[in-house]
Amino acid sequence: AQNAEDQYGVANSQVVAIGETLAATQQQVQQLQESYYEILNANKIFVDEIMHLQKLVKAQNQVHNELLNH
Amino acid sequence: AQNAEDQYGVANSQVVAIGETLAATQQQVQQLQESYYEILNANKIFVDEIMHLQKLVKAQNQVHNELLNH
Amino acid sequence: AQNAEDQYGVANSQVVAIGETLAATQQQVQQLQESYYEILNANKIFVDEIMHLQKLVKAQNQVHNELLNH
Repeated sequence: AQNAEDQYGVANSQVVAIGETLAATQQQVQQLQESYYEILNANKIFVDEIMHLQKLVKAQNQVHNELLNH
Repeated sequence: AQNAEDQYGVANSQVVAIGETLAATQQQVQQLQESYYEILNANKIFVDEIMHLQKLVKAQNQVHNELLNH
Repeated sequence: AQNAEDQYGVANSQVVAIGETLAATQQQVQQLQESYYEILNANKIFVDEIMHLQKLVKAQNQVHNELLNH
């Protein structure tokens, strides 16, 4: 049994190391998840600003048409 | 051997728990990967819209120059 | 002890498999982290371009006001 217990000791420290690495990986994944939500919020602002610019440019085109037909 | 078998039981349940946590982590990573591709697609649309606005605004500047020199 | 050693062999190969899967998962997370930084850089460019367009459109509005009051 001594041999099996030695092997257990090696396997156990491997399991502990894997558990720690996995916990660190999960934390990284959690941070990436939060970063993704921040990007989604930034993208909503981009969509709003781009649509606002499109409206302004379209309105300016109408002013041009009025000025050119004047 | 009884002691080693007890220890095996503890280690085994740790390994099972780690395996389950790892599978869940992989699923989260897979979802983040898909979210990243969605963001890449959204960004392509942003590039297109911004470039289109740049062209429109540049064309309007030329109209202005014509109107001012008229 | 033979039984415990057999069990050890099974558990050990599980631990090795989990270790490999975890290493692969970490590599995916690392790539996602790099992709996130690329998106952050792209978003800085979007902010700059959108702000530049906003300035141009605002300047054009002033040209319009001058032309209309002329």
